[in-house]
Amino acid sequence: MTAIPESHRYLLDAPVATLSTIGPDGRPQSTVLWFAADGDTVKLSLHPARQKTKNLIANPVASLLILDVENTGKYLELRGDVTIEPDPDYAFADAFVTKKYGLDLRVIDGDTAGQRVVVTLRPTRVNAVDMGR
Amino acid sequence: MTAIPESHRYLLDAPVATLSTIGPDGRPQSTVLWFAADGDTVKLSLHPARQKTKNLIANPVASLLILDVENTGKYLELRGDVTIEPDPDYAFADAFVTKKYGLDLRVIDGDTAGQRVVVTLRPTRVNAVDMGR
Repeated sequence: MTAIPESHRYLLDAPVATLSTIGPDGRPQSTVLWFAADGDTVKLSLHPARQKTKNLIANPVASLLILDVENTGKYLELRGDVTIEPDPDYAFADAFVTKKYGLDLRVIDGDTAGQRVVVTLRPTRVNAVDMGR
Repeated sequence: MTAIPESHRYLLDAPVATLSTIGPDGRPQSTVLWFAADGDTVKLSLHPARQKTKNLIANPVASLLILDVENTGKYLELRGDVTIEPDPDYAFADAFVTKKYGLDLRVIDGDTAGQRVVVTLRPTRVNAVDMGR
């Protein structure tokens, strides 16, 4: 169940997704963030100071849910393990984030520029839901 | 941090929320569902046959995230423990689900009518986010 069906692939172009991670207390945490599809994986550009990044470093498991905001009965959930790599020269940020969102993350990061990481989620379970509403 | 700020209370009337639970493998799972606010708690009407319900029975911790679908920079996340009670006579379903959605869950449940439970999430952490986009 790891292929993303054609019926839901358009959601990979959605502006935001909801990332769920496990916090230091063992409980789920959710946050809305930017993401970029890269083939059958999903990539995130995260700052290591953020709690979600700390959660993924400590416990590299995640669920990413993309809701169709124009048809809230339809969504795509991707579950899997993540890998985390540094992105000191913003290679990923430039190739994906700037391309999709038109934003330069160096500007957003300011004094902390150069610390950003790329998180890659390789789905091992795909739930493509259409409630038909 | 358990009060829901005025700036985000309108999201309690949103049509759907994203519930994150922890699955039997210890990993986060997310699903989109109906919900109803009841004062400072959030209630869900769930069927015990569903994986999310099984997850909550085994590990009664959750995160519920409500995205503003018209302004995806704004969302409300509620984290906390849940309690689970039977709703054999659909008292909750009628008072909240039918009222908010105009749906009779007995019809949806069909042969399994009467098995439904009420899940109450009492937030111990509230994240009211506005990215200002």
